[in-house]
Amino acid sequence: GSARMGLVYDGNDTEFSSRIRVVFKMAGETDGGLAFGASVRADQAGVANSGGTAMSAGTVFISGAFGKLTFGDNDSAANVLVGHVSGVGFTGLGDYNELGYLGNTDTSALYEYSTGALSFALSAGQTTATVVTPTGVIDEQAVAVAAKYSTDTFSVALGYEQFGDDEQVTLGGSATFSGATVKAVVADRDSWADTHYALSVDYAIDATTITAFYTDQGPIDTYGIGAAYDLGGGASVLGGIVDDGFDTIAEVGLTFSF
Amino acid sequence: GSARMGLVYDGNDTEFSSRIRVVFKMAGETDGGLAFGASVRADQAGVANSGGTAMSAGTVFISGAFGKLTFGDNDSAANVLVGHVSGVGFTGLGDYNELGYLGNTDTSALYEYSTGALSFALSAGQTTATVVTPTGVIDEQAVAVAAKYSTDTFSVALGYEQFGDDEQVTLGGSATFSGATVKAVVADRDSWADTHYALSVDYAIDATTITAFYTDQGPIDTYGIGAAYDLGGGASVLGGIVDDGFDTIAEVGLTFSF
Amino acid sequence: GSARMGLVYDGNDTEFSSRIRVVFKMAGETDGGLAFGASVRADQAGVANSGGTAMSAGTVFISGAFGKLTFGDNDSAANVLVGHVSGVGFTGLGDYNELGYLGNTDTSALYEYSTGALSFALSAGQTTATVVTPTGVIDEQAVAVAAKYSTDTFSVALGYEQFGDDEQVTLGGSATFSGATVKAVVADRDSWADTHYALSVDYAIDATTITAFYTDQGPIDTYGIGAAYDLGGGASVLGGIVDDGFDTIAEVGLTFSF
Repeated sequence: GSARMGLVYDGNDTEFSSRIRVVFKMAGETDGGLAFGASVRADQAGVANSGGTAMSAGTVFISGAFGKLTFGDNDSAANVLVGHVSGVGFTGLGDYNELGYLGNTDTSALYEYSTGALSFALSAGQTTATVVTPTGVIDEQAVAVAAKYSTDTFSVALGYEQFGDDEQVTLGGSATFSGATVKAVVADRDSWADTHYALSVDYAIDATTITAFYTDQGPIDTYGIGAAYDLGGGASVLGGIVDDGFDTIAEVGLTFSF
Repeated sequence: GSARMGLVYDGNDTEFSSRIRVVFKMAGETDGGLAFGASVRADQAGVANSGGTAMSAGTVFISGAFGKLTFGDNDSAANVLVGHVSGVGFTGLGDYNELGYLGNTDTSALYEYSTGALSFALSAGQTTATVVTPTGVIDEQAVAVAAKYSTDTFSVALGYEQFGDDEQVTLGGSATFSGATVKAVVADRDSWADTHYALSVDYAIDATTITAFYTDQGPIDTYGIGAAYDLGGGASVLGGIVDDGFDTIAEVGLTFSF
Repeated sequence: GSARMGLVYDGNDTEFSSRIRVVFKMAGETDGGLAFGASVRADQAGVANSGGTAMSAGTVFISGAFGKLTFGDNDSAANVLVGHVSGVGFTGLGDYNELGYLGNTDTSALYEYSTGALSFALSAGQTTATVVTPTGVIDEQAVAVAAKYSTDTFSVALGYEQFGDDEQVTLGGSATFSGATVKAVVADRDSWADTHYALSVDYAIDATTITAFYTDQGPIDTYGIGAAYDLGGGASVLGGIVDDGFDTIAEVGLTFSF
């Protein structure tokens, strides 16, 4: 499980923020040596005076020499392999470091396969996913495919997603040298006017990690800087400041992993 | 806990289906030797684009030489002892093998007592259960009583339920010979025009079990056939085809128990 | 976790009542010796035909020589240290022994510090808590402070709460002699016409505890008497009768702790 607590300044007010998550994992193995398992998460989150509570993020998988097949609440293949540049703060401060993926509608299926430095993923949203609009029923079927090459010092990944009538190509890369890790993601979505860019640098000195990011999301540019200090035993202190294009927002808090 | 994943063909479309359940059980014993316990279930289920999530199926019990008394989310006494004939598929494919019980409104109470080959059960729905309709408030109090005689090779069970103004008598039996188990259930409900019938045969060959069922539910007849293969370690592959009286539906998938 | 089952008479009808709770606790320690942890609760409760289910009561804390700081679903500092006089029954029978606290809006923060016989607590509701009414937006910020002095034979506690425009001062005390524990709470809230009083006596004889309480809540007086018998192993039988000012209500049931 995990938990976090801290103060968030949203540009106008400073609020208490806390979240507790318990993850239940189950695992087994068939007589033929296939691994299988499932996980489901119990959340208790509160920001401002809305105290949301839910069971979510359930997945079930089977894996073997053929790779791993997961059904349930999956990210798209592109999101899984390309991912995001680094963010700041104990909640993510709005996750402005993320350019976004088209995603898919659950129940989704995700297939992953790795061999040496090369990873491959394929995902599909629910085959019958649709949404009703004033102009008719819109098909929201989604498929995605992605590949990644990663070594100890660098990685490069490419993902393609299709969701209804929209498409996105996302390219990501990372490189580590002299204590610094640089990450970059470029995303081109049909329904966006411009190509979006994100860049981050993480610099580690002993137990402290300094992180900075910059994104160009068409009309809006955002940037942020933060620091994390590892208290040991699964606890960290994190603080960050982000300019979201309109306001300067900030936060400081603790995260715990159990 | 348990989990399942697979493909369901509903007569028009083939959909991804998955479900994850975690069951929390707690148990204790009094100084006088009475056993007590409780269980509650965390579900994460997704069929098509509705991702339902809930905590449910909570019960609390105390048991001893006097039998077992359970409060909470109980099935009726008739359902507990008479039950259903066998079904097919990894989700149950609509559970058309089940004739149905009148059930009860929770919080319900269930009392069970066994002595040798004979079992006895008595249940009552919430005493104040009512439903408001245009013509007034309808009392939905429910009571049920059932008895079962079972040996290694056969069983016979009889149940009576009363729910509001409706009544149901259900008779069930099973017999095992030469690797085959035959089950039959006959149900007569006041609000049904006809008596309903269900019959199933399970035939086991090594790790494979072949199942077929037939039901006569008044104007609608349904039948299905399926197979299950035990992969060991709590994993099984299950497939089935059902004619629900209108469409032919089918599914294939995996079930895991942990 | 905990569970309970029994019968409740609400003045008109006798109903089945049951509740199951599972508490998930997580804990850790930093390299510098600070303790941290979190808990979240899975509930399955059913009274009459409403079967409520939820994840709730999540909190996350960090503690050390400086005291303990908890974020999440906290009671106010006054409620934590002053508390209530004793109640009766397995569900609390309406909790008429409780005079009530102003409370706070989650996410709240609670700080606690103890040194010897003296305890101190400070709490704050969500800083941006508001409610929209026909006459405008009302600020619901809350703060509370409380102190308690307790020894083996007696305790005295004082709490002050402010919630929006309302204020409450609550004084509580308890004393134990010859097997009897007497508790008293006096609460003075700005928005009440009168000062409210509560008094209880618990008398223990072997495994049985007899409890009686009386409250004067302005126009309404309530009183109740009950008994609890400890079955051992975490199980108890509890029964009680309460006059809530209008009806006589009663209940008998079992509670289990795991």
